[in-house]
Amino acid sequence: MLKMTLKEVLESIKPKDEERKKVKLIMDELRGIAQEVIEESGEEIEVKFVGSLAKDTYLSGDHDIDMFLAFPLSIPVEKLKSKGLEIAESIGKRLESYEISYAEHPYVRGVYKGYQVDIVPCYNVRDWREVRTAVDRSILHTEWVLKNIKGKNDEVRLLKRFLKGINAYGSEVYRRGFSGYLAEILVIKFGSFLKVLEKADFMLRQKIIDPENWLKREPEIAMKTVKREIEEDKPIIVIDPVDPRRNVAANLSWERYGLFYFKAREFLTKPSTELFFPRDKKGNYLEVLRRKGTHLVTLTFEPPNLVDDIIIPQVERTAKGLARQLELEGFRVLGIDYGRDFIFLEVEEIERPRIKIKKGPLYFTHHGLRFFDKNDIVWIEGKELASEKSSLGFIVDVLEDILRKGQFSAGKNVKDAIVGANIIIDFVPKALAQEAYLFLSREKFRVK
Amino acid sequence: MLKMTLKEVLESIKPKDEERKKVKLIMDELRGIAQEVIEESGEEIEVKFVGSLAKDTYLSGDHDIDMFLAFPLSIPVEKLKSKGLEIAESIGKRLESYEISYAEHPYVRGVYKGYQVDIVPCYNVRDWREVRTAVDRSILHTEWVLKNIKGKNDEVRLLKRFLKGINAYGSEVYRRGFSGYLAEILVIKFGSFLKVLEKADFMLRQKIIDPENWLKREPEIAMKTVKREIEEDKPIIVIDPVDPRRNVAANLSWERYGLFYFKAREFLTKPSTELFFPRDKKGNYLEVLRRKGTHLVTLTFEPPNLVDDIIIPQVERTAKGLARQLELEGFRVLGIDYGRDFIFLEVEEIERPRIKIKKGPLYFTHHGLRFFDKNDIVWIEGKELASEKSSLGFIVDVLEDILRKGQFSAGKNVKDAIVGANIIIDFVPKALAQEAYLFLSREKFRVK
Repeated sequence: MLKMTLKEVLESIKPKDEERKKVKLIMDELRGIAQEVIEESGEEIEVKFVGSLAKDTYLSGDHDIDMFLAFPLSIPVEKLKSKGLEIAESIGKRLESYEISYAEHPYVRGVYKGYQVDIVPCYNVRDWREVRTAVDRSILHTEWVLKNIKGKNDEVRLLKRFLKGINAYGSEVYRRGFSGYLAEILVIKFGSFLKVLEKADFMLRQKIIDPENWLKREPEIAMKTVKREIEEDKPIIVIDPVDPRRNVAANLSWERYGLFYFKAREFLTKPSTELFFPRDKKGNYLEVLRRKGTHLVTLTFEPPNLVDDIIIPQVERTAKGLARQLELEGFRVLGIDYGRDFIFLEVEEIERPRIKIKKGPLYFTHHGLRFFDKNDIVWIEGKELASEKSSLGFIVDVLEDILRKGQFSAGKNVKDAIVGANIIIDFVPKALAQEAYLFLSREKFRVK
Repeated sequence: MLKMTLKEVLESIKPKDEERKKVKLIMDELRGIAQEVIEESGEEIEVKFVGSLAKDTYLSGDHDIDMFLAFPLSIPVEKLKSKGLEIAESIGKRLESYEISYAEHPYVRGVYKGYQVDIVPCYNVRDWREVRTAVDRSILHTEWVLKNIKGKNDEVRLLKRFLKGINAYGSEVYRRGFSGYLAEILVIKFGSFLKVLEKADFMLRQKIIDPENWLKREPEIAMKTVKREIEEDKPIIVIDPVDPRRNVAANLSWERYGLFYFKAREFLTKPSTELFFPRDKKGNYLEVLRRKGTHLVTLTFEPPNLVDDIIIPQVERTAKGLARQLELEGFRVLGIDYGRDFIFLEVEEIERPRIKIKKGPLYFTHHGLRFFDKNDIVWIEGKELASEKSSLGFIVDVLEDILRKGQFSAGKNVKDAIVGANIIIDFVPKALAQEAYLFLSREKFRVK
């Protein structure tokens, strides 16, 4: 039963021979083009493919090509940036189309025979001590996986597909799930897809996974990594086999790990292909609102043109700050969600009384007399004084007041944008309808 | 200015000679009637007038006559009850009209030449050790005041009128203000109306007022009284000049004392007759509701036929119990008020979401798995699980559910009546309209 299920899944995710040949051909052609351009430039650059295609752990149909232009370490970073972009662009010009993208440094994203190709300048590093830019490590990752995978490629494919199915795949900051590299490490460490699932609980308790024994080989550096990640309360710490300074699972959130935790358990008890290929979770957020009797406050705004890694954590902080302020104002916030350009707040009510009762001190004390003097309307409740002041009743007025006064903790790059946000009640722009549904229905992190 | 004000007030509250003569005449006539009836009965009973008329501390126009029939101590209580009522009724029959009323034991309330007369059987006690029924003490009170007042009758009148004006007069359980006797004691103790006002803060700090030095004369008994009253957190303890077992201010609430506290201060700073004769605090409770944006939940019910002293404290306990339950259900209760046959609850909202979110334990714990197994809908929030269950949305449904299940602390004599109460939202029967206004506007205990 279990084996049948896995076989059935593999059938549809493992690339067939024809697909493999095609991919290989495309990569060879790209390498040819790149080498021609490099030769013309006279620079000493090695072409290296990295990523799941290079490691042969890609899923059928998943063909994003990562072609790295590896410069010698002797070249200064500034030159690597300018020369690298120049050569990448020259290669881009020979493809069907291309554009320049910006991460830590610029790279070229092109299309060749229908395949997406990222052409990324980097240093030709041999170990972690030589790493200078964030992308350099990819070369080491690819080498490590190729050396250690020992034919377990299909096990990685199963795990990746499983993680996609349960919505826990992808380490981008707006997902915080498992990266492909993390999936590879886990299969290499534990031996198979099923064994990784079986370790879902164990990993959390063990906390630290250290396949290359960095804690012995480089105890000081590795312990620093462990301490840092524990302080930041990460669910698991996977010390990068090629770099003791890094937790491969640094971006993995407790929620995404939780999905893995419960779905692994579910699969082991009741194997089914459904978890790999779930039905679409589509639904109408307005119906959810009606059923629950709660309300959705949406802020939409235009963040500055910075990468997600900067913007999204700041939006998160802002969303939490606004929720806290609304709670202080007496609105009960049931949940928050956010993205690059929006914040959702689910609240119990959108109207509150237009007065606010202030509880005062004991009436026969010095503080009592101060309270009496300071307020216009004062009455006695038991031994204490109380007073009322008028307040805004509608949540939009209250939020606008909070925003205008800037009384909320917020990320500095997004604060201005969010202060000018549109506030919409119980309705969202079409582009956010599905997000709103996943949030309000709690399908997003639902485990049962 | 101050003297002028007091003179002006006295002018209208001090009974004129004509009124005094009339009152004296009426009392003499009543005494004559009573003595005739007593003679016919052959019993050995003394007629004694008590209360403010007997003490000459009554306000002009306040003419409720208390005529006590004092039986010798040798008579057993049962006989005092039956014989006392029989004779009181015989007197009643010679008046314009009468009816039987019930306190600790029955008495007769009649009308004679337009005056209300209470005819109350009691024991002819000479000191507190002889006191057997609650009313016996009145004879001692009257004697004590007559002996100690030394011409300060008008000062008492000023204090009584002041307390009436600020709504702090009357020690009935539904008011919990100052009794007439308490006003008399304070004037006797401190010397004048103004001196009593000046002591408003001092009294609270001093806590104990003991005009007859019971703490020295009967330290054990008096200390027991003090301890008991402190435990019950009474604002002040005035040891009854005629009975060390009793706090004359036992029924005085912190709220009523608070009114006195702040109004005394106000009068001393800015003397005005307004405080003695305030304008009517009339208003429309519906307008208050509209202004505040809050809601009024009213329960009306028919309590069993027991005296206020029993019913009202039980209604109070029940009102607090219901408020607590509603808070637990997620409704915010801003205030409560109550009377013999009604409970008011002011709430922020009358609708709540139709779902309730249950926060669960950490997801990777034993409790987490139990929570997962026990609930139908489960999702992850951070490191914790959460679940939702449907709940009643409308406050009337929630209250009816609480009442039906009996899940609230209540007085035993009123619980049945309140379980069957009518629940009305944002509307009250006409008879409660003014009460509702005083409550919602907080005029009831307003000090500024």
